[in-house]
Amino acid sequence: MLAEIISIGDELLIGQTINTNAAYIGAKLTEIGIEVNWITSVGDDRNALFSVLAIAEKRADVIICTGGLGPTHDDLTKDVFVTYFKAKLICNEKILNKIKSFFFDRGVEMPNINEEQALVPDNATVIENNVGTAPGLLFLNQDNKMFFVLPGVPFEMKTMIDNEVVPILKTKSKKFIKYKILKTTGIGESSLFEKIDNIQELEKFVKIAFLPKITGVEIRINSINESEELCLKNMLLAESKILEKISQYVWGKDDENLEDIVVNLLIKKHKTVAVVESCSGGALTDRLTNHLNSNSYLSHSIISNNLNTTSTILGVLPESLIQFGAISAEIAVQMAQKIKDMNFSDFGVAINGNWTPTQNDEDFGVTLIAVSDHDKNVCEKLILKRDINFNKQRTAQVALDLLRRRLLIID
Amino acid sequence: MLAEIISIGDELLIGQTINTNAAYIGAKLTEIGIEVNWITSVGDDRNALFSVLAIAEKRADVIICTGGLGPTHDDLTKDVFVTYFKAKLICNEKILNKIKSFFFDRGVEMPNINEEQALVPDNATVIENNVGTAPGLLFLNQDNKMFFVLPGVPFEMKTMIDNEVVPILKTKSKKFIKYKILKTTGIGESSLFEKIDNIQELEKFVKIAFLPKITGVEIRINSINESEELCLKNMLLAESKILEKISQYVWGKDDENLEDIVVNLLIKKHKTVAVVESCSGGALTDRLTNHLNSNSYLSHSIISNNLNTTSTILGVLPESLIQFGAISAEIAVQMAQKIKDMNFSDFGVAINGNWTPTQNDEDFGVTLIAVSDHDKNVCEKLILKRDINFNKQRTAQVALDLLRRRLLIID
Repeated sequence: MLAEIISIGDELLIGQTINTNAAYIGAKLTEIGIEVNWITSVGDDRNALFSVLAIAEKRADVIICTGGLGPTHDDLTKDVFVTYFKAKLICNEKILNKIKSFFFDRGVEMPNINEEQALVPDNATVIENNVGTAPGLLFLNQDNKMFFVLPGVPFEMKTMIDNEVVPILKTKSKKFIKYKILKTTGIGESSLFEKIDNIQELEKFVKIAFLPKITGVEIRINSINESEELCLKNMLLAESKILEKISQYVWGKDDENLEDIVVNLLIKKHKTVAVVESCSGGALTDRLTNHLNSNSYLSHSIISNNLNTTSTILGVLPESLIQFGAISAEIAVQMAQKIKDMNFSDFGVAINGNWTPTQNDEDFGVTLIAVSDHDKNVCEKLILKRDINFNKQRTAQVALDLLRRRLLIID
Repeated sequence: MLAEIISIGDELLIGQTINTNAAYIGAKLTEIGIEVNWITSVGDDRNALFSVLAIAEKRADVIICTGGLGPTHDDLTKDVFVTYFKAKLICNEKILNKIKSFFFDRGVEMPNINEEQALVPDNATVIENNVGTAPGLLFLNQDNKMFFVLPGVPFEMKTMIDNEVVPILKTKSKKFIKYKILKTTGIGESSLFEKIDNIQELEKFVKIAFLPKITGVEIRINSINESEELCLKNMLLAESKILEKISQYVWGKDDENLEDIVVNLLIKKHKTVAVVESCSGGALTDRLTNHLNSNSYLSHSIISNNLNTTSTILGVLPESLIQFGAISAEIAVQMAQKIKDMNFSDFGVAINGNWTPTQNDEDFGVTLIAVSDHDKNVCEKLILKRDINFNKQRTAQVALDLLRRRLLIID
């Protein structure tokens, strides 16, 4: 069963609104085994919508449209469907009363134009909207292809997808779609590809994709099958084959995020960490504090882009700065050790770097991330020459991953 | 000149990734007078992409594709274009050297599969990618319709759109598109529509749309014309006609956000504000502190869902709580006055409400927002029965708007 999502509204085409609705619907349909093959955005324009519907009717079995059901003149969706399905509009008293009480409950007088929302096409089934005024609609064509028409307001759309559309479609779907996302950091997609090596072999029974994100490359293993059991079995087999080759780069799966993994390890192992950040301006600290009670594991954090001040506070000797250079692994490691010792923490993390381009600056882009514990010091060097936002995110991600790797080893 | 954006990748269809790329491109093309009429997302599938291209070629003059240019096996876009435009792949030495130095600069060894990215179709123009390894491509069909092919990594796509694609398209575009967004809060879209009243008159020379968002309804005035002057003139005329009718609901325009407007008014007028929040859990304080030096205008903020504690701290008499009820305008106003006086602030804001559904609870959903200053107390009552996230956002928005209105009046 192939689906197309049609998102209606000029705001999507001019970039005033990012299409989060389609992603929501795509995820929900995938969960119940319906393959979304196309997402189309089209403006508030009768002819454009009409021809987009005609294309969708040819290629998809189920079409889910959102948007353009509001009460104002720019909402054309219902009108276009009335023409497309040669319908007549009739007033639905039940819906009219619902709209009236919707306004009454909120202590607001109902504007006259909202009455029109109670007019529904005679050949459509009404999809209840219990959280807004625009009813949804379900049309069937002569081949029993389904056209769902829903409001574009995200809260209303989501409620109706969950409570009305998914239960209807679930009974029709004969397939199962499962996917697993393996999240990596510190390695590029082409290197991962080469390390996994036997992709062609795996693609005989699953589909594999590589998706580079700021936080690292995600590997998606996708299995579609008519038996749920086989679907899961294939996915898990492919997962284990891939992990055999690259498990050391994988820090999490599916919806997991790296700071939760690190914080949970810190709490579980009763460990504390102290942090000193220069160029990254608190990007690591910010993620480590996305958790209640962060004072139980984060001893202390110093954020300062003035390396002289920081090294004075930490007691890094000026001679060392001259000897090794401020932006060096030696200094980063010293700072990680010192922030750890000063705060009697189990781990110290230091981030140092030069992200300000100046002429003939050999250091530009160099970023050092050091993690120190009672047993070992590790330091990773990155070259980051992008915008501050990217550099911060990438640095925090690598720092969290270094900390995670040490946490897995240390008792 | 009509454009279609084609976003390629299964991650978009299954909801793993929200399509921010298309919104970015849509905004950029609109700025230079190119109308985006369709956005299509399609998976990593040769046949699906091929037929989507054929549809786009019929209806659009310029087609911008992103995604699927990476080095791994699931990146099929270049292959599909080679077939579509009957091209041959040839190695481009300049690109090969660029890819090699891209890895060298980062101190990483180049995996072999990246070499394939230097193979480019013989009938396409290369669009330089100075921030990644995948070159972009520009194909022309026999009618001189343009097909741009760009990587899907947002940073690479954005850089290439800004530096390569926009300069090419700007010279071809003969139209101007201007739009203005008027941002309102505290009134529904149908009421706004009725108050503006003469929409049909205005739509003779501009296009007007209503877009409900959590932060309030946005009115978009859109003007498309062959003369930039006329385009601007029409837009400004419509704006002034609309503002005549509903200016009291408009708190900002275009990219403005309400907290910036309020904070700038506080700073400009040298005023301070103190806040007490119960149900809204800091949603107002959070937005008031999205600004450096918030201690210069935010005197103090108490966030507590325990009304007894808060009223004790503020000195609200237990008798008053019994007399008026905890969730009442009288108590909200008293709290706003007391938090203001306690902190010697110019304004006090109090938010009180009951968002926890219990049986036979008449108060459920009632939310009171009071603003107090030396001259006047104002209080607004909302009925909010949605999820906590929505309720918080809506409450903070109304509170900021109440504060804004008083700030405009007070010297």
